[in-house]
Amino acid sequence: MVNQQIKIGNTVFFKNLPRIKSFAAICGSKEKEGIIGEYADITLDDDMYGESTFEKAECKMLTNAISLAIEKGGFKEQDIDVMLSGDLLNQIISASFAARDYDFPFLGVYSACSTMSESIMLAAMLVNAGYVKRAVAATGSHFASAERQYRYPLEQGTTRPPQSQWTVTGAGGCTVCEGDEGIKITSATMGRVCDYGVIDVNNMGAAMAPAAADTIMQHFKDTGTQPTDYDLILTGDLGALGSRIVKDLTWEKGYDISSRHVDCGEIIYKVIEDEFQGGSGAGCSAVVLNSYVLSKMRAGLYKRILFAATGALLSTVSSGQGESIPGISHVVELEY
Amino acid sequence: MVNQQIKIGNTVFFKNLPRIKSFAAICGSKEKEGIIGEYADITLDDDMYGESTFEKAECKMLTNAISLAIEKGGFKEQDIDVMLSGDLLNQIISASFAARDYDFPFLGVYSACSTMSESIMLAAMLVNAGYVKRAVAATGSHFASAERQYRYPLEQGTTRPPQSQWTVTGAGGCTVCEGDEGIKITSATMGRVCDYGVIDVNNMGAAMAPAAADTIMQHFKDTGTQPTDYDLILTGDLGALGSRIVKDLTWEKGYDISSRHVDCGEIIYKVIEDEFQGGSGAGCSAVVLNSYVLSKMRAGLYKRILFAATGALLSTVSSGQGESIPGISHVVELEY
Repeated sequence: MVNQQIKIGNTVFFKNLPRIKSFAAICGSKEKEGIIGEYADITLDDDMYGESTFEKAECKMLTNAISLAIEKGGFKEQDIDVMLSGDLLNQIISASFAARDYDFPFLGVYSACSTMSESIMLAAMLVNAGYVKRAVAATGSHFASAERQYRYPLEQGTTRPPQSQWTVTGAGGCTVCEGDEGIKITSATMGRVCDYGVIDVNNMGAAMAPAAADTIMQHFKDTGTQPTDYDLILTGDLGALGSRIVKDLTWEKGYDISSRHVDCGEIIYKVIEDEFQGGSGAGCSAVVLNSYVLSKMRAGLYKRILFAATGALLSTVSSGQGESIPGISHVVELEY
Repeated sequence: MVNQQIKIGNTVFFKNLPRIKSFAAICGSKEKEGIIGEYADITLDDDMYGESTFEKAECKMLTNAISLAIEKGGFKEQDIDVMLSGDLLNQIISASFAARDYDFPFLGVYSACSTMSESIMLAAMLVNAGYVKRAVAATGSHFASAERQYRYPLEQGTTRPPQSQWTVTGAGGCTVCEGDEGIKITSATMGRVCDYGVIDVNNMGAAMAPAAADTIMQHFKDTGTQPTDYDLILTGDLGALGSRIVKDLTWEKGYDISSRHVDCGEIIYKVIEDEFQGGSGAGCSAVVLNSYVLSKMRAGLYKRILFAATGALLSTVSSGQGESIPGISHVVELEY
């Protein structure tokens, strides 16, 4: 342990190298038109997914993403020791009701759209320490359930401002396992809550960008790395505007991430203009990571990436009471 | 490691014995009349706590419980490596906004009223593995913010059915640290989601009791212990009815916990009849544990306890869509 510290700053190093052994993603009818369409395991023609409500469809996507990830890893339900999941719905009902279908323990987590990296990070911490052999990390979101919970009834046909993003309909999950197979989780940097005072609930990208910049730079500092040490620095759902802000904020502090940075929200839809700033929602980074990105990693396109899902920690109540929007971003380092 | 397994079943054993070094609790005007009144650090005369909204008062209680726990441990903010917290409000805004006030990382967790044991368990896992030296685990709730979110506006004066419980106004937190000082966290059992099909949103005790019974019995099985090995088996907020159910369910399987079992919800209020089944809410077990119970433990009254906070994983949407109420309970074993 002399030359191998467990933690520096806010970054935890995983000496036992927990692995993402398998991953799965399901996406909606709009999402499948984009880059992830051919990489997702299941693409929906009807976003109701055969269910009677949007919320039940969201839960079904999450459940099936989890089951598929388990199956693709060559595992059965009883091989899994714990599930870490959360989602955007009040009281994380998608995750809780998905967990009801399984016999393994459930650890509910919440960091809004940063839930994918928080759940992978905690899963890696548990596996690396030897507490569990195999964990599942997953999250998802649904455009229609998010709209009616956070914004307006769809039937109202409210127009959207140009700084807004489109909540992704989709779910993604992966198994985090001990052993030698799969994509290595090298380290993880725990995020702090950052609040630059943004109060526009339609401008999540601006609210989350400071947190992404903070944790990404903390990661560089703790690990002694530079942006160019990574093939990809993947933020969660900052969208086009938020992506410009995160590049600015890091550039101001001496880190030029522009040649490596890609945002899941920016790339998920085919024609970004249609959805203004791009995609958002916990499902955005979950789907992009667990389909396109990890597939490309396994194919050798990317050797080392930073995955920084980003979350806006607001609720309709907090914004209604005049609060600004705090952001958070947890960062996971992956190698293959 | 030959004689010391890290995990058996769903139970993780902490060989490095992370410690609860300090704890703090704040309770409301109704709660201070009960058993915890003289043990809580701050008791409110006015449940608004000088704030303009119930939600802001809830957040202030949680923030102050965290700060007090840090201070009572002889720590400063910069000594703390991470905070684990969650709460009942949509998108856990109390915890997220409390975390905004600190410079350390924040891991949002959610398991409804089982959040206190989930956060202590995860904090112990992080400390035991050496990822962090000192963590804070905390949660809270507020009667008025819970009523208006989950039930009816207080102004409506809706009558309460006899199976209902009263959401506790209060917050509690503790520091989980490496070292030799404080109450030892010996093991923790991760809970599974259990759903016996209860659909009555006023009867949380019945919905949560199966999960409490499941995790407590799993703990006995994994650790090879019996109910009488513990001085106290402390459930979270089952209330009077739920407490009877958990005793029945465990008794049916051959475990008689009756001589050791106490429920935080059952003991928190002075005259139980006034609040029907007793207290509930994430703050219920958080306040009782972090005031009365840990104080008595430190005074030598209890040497070994099981803390099983209990959560009902519903939302107004899930119940409105006809879903039953899944329950969860994470268990932490404490020794002094």
